[in-house]
Amino acid sequence: MTLNQFAIVESTLREGEQFVGANFSSDDKLEIARALDEFGVEYLELTSAAASPKSKRDCQRIAGLGLNTKVLTHIRCHQEDAKIALDAGVDGINLVIGTSYFLREYSHGKDIDTIIELASEVLTFIREQAPEVELRFSTEDSFRSTYEDLSRVYLALDKLGVVDRFGIADTVGVSTPNRVYDLVRMVRAQTDAYIEFHGHNDTGCAIANCYAALDAGATHIDTTVLGIGERNGIAPLAGFIARMYAEDKELIKQKYNLPALAPVHEIVSQKVGLPIPVNHYIVGDCAFNHKAGIHTKAMLNNANAYEIIDPTDFGLNRNIQITHKLTGWHAIANRVSQLGLDLSISKIKTLTKQIKEMADQKDLTLNEVDDLLWAAAQAPNSVPSNRK
Amino acid sequence: MTLNQFAIVESTLREGEQFVGANFSSDDKLEIARALDEFGVEYLELTSAAASPKSKRDCQRIAGLGLNTKVLTHIRCHQEDAKIALDAGVDGINLVIGTSYFLREYSHGKDIDTIIELASEVLTFIREQAPEVELRFSTEDSFRSTYEDLSRVYLALDKLGVVDRFGIADTVGVSTPNRVYDLVRMVRAQTDAYIEFHGHNDTGCAIANCYAALDAGATHIDTTVLGIGERNGIAPLAGFIARMYAEDKELIKQKYNLPALAPVHEIVSQKVGLPIPVNHYIVGDCAFNHKAGIHTKAMLNNANAYEIIDPTDFGLNRNIQITHKLTGWHAIANRVSQLGLDLSISKIKTLTKQIKEMADQKDLTLNEVDDLLWAAAQAPNSVPSNRK
Repeated sequence: MTLNQFAIVESTLREGEQFVGANFSSDDKLEIARALDEFGVEYLELTSAAASPKSKRDCQRIAGLGLNTKVLTHIRCHQEDAKIALDAGVDGINLVIGTSYFLREYSHGKDIDTIIELASEVLTFIREQAPEVELRFSTEDSFRSTYEDLSRVYLALDKLGVVDRFGIADTVGVSTPNRVYDLVRMVRAQTDAYIEFHGHNDTGCAIANCYAALDAGATHIDTTVLGIGERNGIAPLAGFIARMYAEDKELIKQKYNLPALAPVHEIVSQKVGLPIPVNHYIVGDCAFNHKAGIHTKAMLNNANAYEIIDPTDFGLNRNIQITHKLTGWHAIANRVSQLGLDLSISKIKTLTKQIKEMADQKDLTLNEVDDLLWAAAQAPNSVPSNRK
Repeated sequence: MTLNQFAIVESTLREGEQFVGANFSSDDKLEIARALDEFGVEYLELTSAAASPKSKRDCQRIAGLGLNTKVLTHIRCHQEDAKIALDAGVDGINLVIGTSYFLREYSHGKDIDTIIELASEVLTFIREQAPEVELRFSTEDSFRSTYEDLSRVYLALDKLGVVDRFGIADTVGVSTPNRVYDLVRMVRAQTDAYIEFHGHNDTGCAIANCYAALDAGATHIDTTVLGIGERNGIAPLAGFIARMYAEDKELIKQKYNLPALAPVHEIVSQKVGLPIPVNHYIVGDCAFNHKAGIHTKAMLNNANAYEIIDPTDFGLNRNIQITHKLTGWHAIANRVSQLGLDLSISKIKTLTKQIKEMADQKDLTLNEVDDLLWAAAQAPNSVPSNRK
């Protein structure tokens, strides 16, 4: 395990933009980029500068912020896309082209020889124009590509001496840890370049696959906040951090600014209109909640009994319920609905603020919160309650 | 891989009851039990009959329904709990006791010899009383227990000749697929009993760990709907099904009634007041959503290009957005909030119904839905909109 060598390629501003609810404004992107930089990810991947004039301007603005994180843009394997990307002033360019039967047949129509020829041209062109730019070449849908095809591509492109990093992508989320390990191992044996892994989560193995990739010698891991992306997305940042923290807590505390993890989730959650799932890793409302008597008894004796992640390292609390100061309006809305009450969103947001403030002062019980919600539903200016 | 031998132990009515938002009534439990039986899970695990008089009555009622699925109750390794469980008329009893240093020290205070002695007594007692009852013995927190301790326990109890199934539990969600594989392999080598795996998801490996357990010879896998449970829960049913479908589609279509998967999620989601996360496996609103031009182009040519799961096998559609007939009020509420509008929950639910009905008649665009929401916000009996 090359734990201390790995870097995060945070792709909320690229893969995440392909999520159904994501339509980031330029200012949104800057806010998210700054929040991710504050957390300390090593790379930010942005939507192709060639996608639209706005996309290019966004690349230029974010590259010009002077962040600690390196700024990449993700482009198709096209000379025209490369020219625009170079003009955007980014630190690195991530090229991608599909190598599986499905994508060769139904996406771009090129055979492996043509892919090698095209990639060689574009990679050499970029390297000539910009000797300092980090260059990644990725084989989309790697796990439905043959080892023979992948080997031919990697070996041919490695010989050019211009690729910094090869990307292995589980584009359809079909792979399992053993298969990721085997493929990364093969590439590791064929080249000294860095290896990036990008894993979709359709069958629930994205985080375990990232972990297996590192175990096999990969160096760069793609994540997005909340895992947003095409379909149900890729490895979520908080889940990957949870996994690595469980492996080497001190390393992760040293590499990243852990209390900045929850704020970036709140920002992205708001921008995409997707509440943070209550059972999301680390930052979900119930990640550190303990309920069964057998659990709580042991927890009162020693917090390690049922927790391998210390919430306070992330500026968070355990035993989180809807009655605490970190609650959110979606949780309160659910409680309102469970009680059969009817309140407007603005009222619920005001109540949420009020509950947060009260919880800051004293321990609240669920009954006290419920009383507050009932009272609000019966106030004169509320919408009618359906309480009998 | 012993794919065709595995069985699901569905624990929404036990582990799921330990989720912060879960407080099922007896009728809720019956409804969930029937819906899971309709989907075709092999086992239902219920909260200990010894937990409360209501828990015992719930066990008796569900055991008396004549479901196809076998009904189990999960108890502590106590003679008294065992007596009550036997009286509940269930098909099987799942015993559990912690074997890790943390749980021995901070939960029950017993050493390994005492655990073996106690478990032998309880297991033998149950077997004498009920020769036909399925008996599982599980080592809680197996992955922070030593191989030496676990071996002593399994070998001693296996000799009794009364255990049908040993349970291996990743209680704190710390394990990885390789470690699960190794431990299951060890137990597989020591006994002919069935092996059950229970995996928490704190570090994102629960589904991959279930898969690794099967690969190593496990036979029974614990799941809950939406993955609900202590903290952020265990392997989610839909995610485990997605993984196994990717492995052997025909087998999964034959074993389970796939169109019944989404309905059981809607029921549980409603009972616990937790919206189905939009990026949840298979049943989440965006699981089959495609957005980027490069993806949609290929999808129009061949749906396999970016999908390894066919949504129609589950009675679902691809390209699912908020403008379709399967939308829910939480999604519409988010859209309302994104638009800066303010509507009551009852109004949002009415609008959702209206949108569902309109979508049944024709394809809706997001603009048409937005127009509907704006109009509702401006109607005389709505709460004031904050539109300038």
